[in-house]
Amino acid sequence: MKLKADRATLLKALAHIQSVAEKRNTIPILANVLINVADGRLTLTATDMEIAVVEEIGAETARNGAVTAPAAVLHEIVRKLPDGVAVELDHAGGDAPLALRAGRYTTSLNVLDVDDFPSMTAGTLPNHFTVPAAVLRGLIDRTRFAISTEETRYYLNGIYLHVAAGDTGPMLRAVATDGHRLARVETEVPSGAEEMPGVIVPRKTIAELRKLLDEGAEDVVVGLSDTRIQFSVGPVTLTSKLIDGTFPEYDRVIPRGNDRILRVGKKDFSDAVARVAAISQERSRPVKLSIGRNLLTLSAVSPDQGTAKEELDENHVTYDAEPMEIGFQARYLNDITDQIERDVEFAFSDSSAPTIVRDVASPSALYVLMPMRV
Amino acid sequence: MKLKADRATLLKALAHIQSVAEKRNTIPILANVLINVADGRLTLTATDMEIAVVEEIGAETARNGAVTAPAAVLHEIVRKLPDGVAVELDHAGGDAPLALRAGRYTTSLNVLDVDDFPSMTAGTLPNHFTVPAAVLRGLIDRTRFAISTEETRYYLNGIYLHVAAGDTGPMLRAVATDGHRLARVETEVPSGAEEMPGVIVPRKTIAELRKLLDEGAEDVVVGLSDTRIQFSVGPVTLTSKLIDGTFPEYDRVIPRGNDRILRVGKKDFSDAVARVAAISQERSRPVKLSIGRNLLTLSAVSPDQGTAKEELDENHVTYDAEPMEIGFQARYLNDITDQIERDVEFAFSDSSAPTIVRDVASPSALYVLMPMRV
Repeated sequence: MKLKADRATLLKALAHIQSVAEKRNTIPILANVLINVADGRLTLTATDMEIAVVEEIGAETARNGAVTAPAAVLHEIVRKLPDGVAVELDHAGGDAPLALRAGRYTTSLNVLDVDDFPSMTAGTLPNHFTVPAAVLRGLIDRTRFAISTEETRYYLNGIYLHVAAGDTGPMLRAVATDGHRLARVETEVPSGAEEMPGVIVPRKTIAELRKLLDEGAEDVVVGLSDTRIQFSVGPVTLTSKLIDGTFPEYDRVIPRGNDRILRVGKKDFSDAVARVAAISQERSRPVKLSIGRNLLTLSAVSPDQGTAKEELDENHVTYDAEPMEIGFQARYLNDITDQIERDVEFAFSDSSAPTIVRDVASPSALYVLMPMRV
Repeated sequence: MKLKADRATLLKALAHIQSVAEKRNTIPILANVLINVADGRLTLTATDMEIAVVEEIGAETARNGAVTAPAAVLHEIVRKLPDGVAVELDHAGGDAPLALRAGRYTTSLNVLDVDDFPSMTAGTLPNHFTVPAAVLRGLIDRTRFAISTEETRYYLNGIYLHVAAGDTGPMLRAVATDGHRLARVETEVPSGAEEMPGVIVPRKTIAELRKLLDEGAEDVVVGLSDTRIQFSVGPVTLTSKLIDGTFPEYDRVIPRGNDRILRVGKKDFSDAVARVAAISQERSRPVKLSIGRNLLTLSAVSPDQGTAKEELDENHVTYDAEPMEIGFQARYLNDITDQIERDVEFAFSDSSAPTIVRDVASPSALYVLMPMRV
């Protein structure tokens, strides 16, 4: 295998690669990148056996062949090379080390047997559809904060992507929940996704995909089966196992008939939450909302430090239902308002029942938040 | 006590204050800031019993008095208030909580008895001198990386500031060492410092002082005794205990007569060190320098990953002494070159003896580095 590639091109690909490659040292070859030149095309591959990333990059290829070398070291070296330099990779085959040359810098990297590199095949992917990168970003950003980190509830450790009946017909939905809050965002069903199975995409896959979505590709091609999902973003193909579990029937936790409606400017609200919560150093800082006619008072108490309070009046708030008090975790409130553009709408039932939160400007997103006793 | 202050002014002072205030909760009042209004002047004070910071800030004062309240919470609250808002602090005296009002935000902070707030007095400071902030920055930046973190060698846990005989007469010197490397920087003795005792300024004091030096004051007034040092930087006064110990006779570890001189461009050298060291993931990455006539080869070996090598030729290097090989920790090399502007000069004796490193453009700084076996 022999090739010459531009440092910047190689660096960008290695950044994707080393992010997927396994950092723990349990199975050494998973820390390696597979570098393959075939028919004059160069591809880099990394996998942790759950996710695989394959990237084709432009290079001047001189000799076909394949080799595996440590991904993190290779990334670090290429990162430190001066910009604009040409990087030559040269492998004589077999156990021979991989030589990297760039200007007067040379390195000789230990390799592991290409045959031991696990191939993670996608298998047959019966469902295929295309979705704009911006739409996929919207689905991910507005739901991923609610993904559970509890390993015992593995079926909540991802985003549930499925087609469901929305108000105006079938919709492609992304849903995540950790039992304390739920986020549900929907978009039109892309052509080809109508028959897709409901799938749970793991958190790490979401994180890797999200990074790729910022790199300028307009559209993402999605392929999926019951057990695998594949995203093609520009020159990168990300293949992932799906979580083998049943996502709960989340529709049952979305309350109907919450009719006490509070509207408040997002920035005023989230700033006030942060200021009021600053009194407490606990991780689960509770904030109390005391709501009267066009008046919202936020307050928090810390036995050690004191109390804090802020009022938002009719210039910021509209509310004309029965006065009420309700408490929430400050962080949970702001995780949701972070996703809202300008105005927040709360729909309450009572102070112990789940509350619905919406982005006034974007009806496609719906959040459910459990109150806490304050 | 009652006053009104501008949020930005208060925030800046609280940033200094909370940085010195004790974070651990062993003695609760050390986590508090002392807010004092006397004769219409507002001062904020924090101390951890080793360092005290006192800052006078402009405020509209309405009533004299003093109170202590949690520094970190107050800082966090003021940080989250909108810019431009006026902040009112109001304390009725005694155990009453401290009220903070800003717009429609109010907080009521628990206080602790002012009489329990430890006063850290500087005592008499027989030596006083003024030093430009830029000079003090230069002394600190070029030595602090070498301060030892080994608590058993407490007398090395700071910068040794003293007057010593330099090549052209007495000089004010800053020295730090951890046994592996030593940094010595000198400047003219400021008027008033001639008779100062040699003192060891603790690492935390150096860190707090260094932050203050970036805030625009031109000159720093230094006062000191055998046991205390005080820095006045603009409106801030930082008082610190000194380390009660004897700094070693560092002059004895500075080799004389190292006559193998290597000169190399700083950027070429430090980039090459970083690239070559990238092959190894050990914390103490050794890099070997193989030096011949106007040729420097840097190399590193990792049993797991492979080898790396870079040559710097006569375009980058001058050397005409006997060829030699010598090894150093990559991080130690780059800690020194980070402080060097353009060209580095190494003066070697042999591959097992301490090496002198200098900034060609700045003879006031001298570094000694112990080699490691490679």
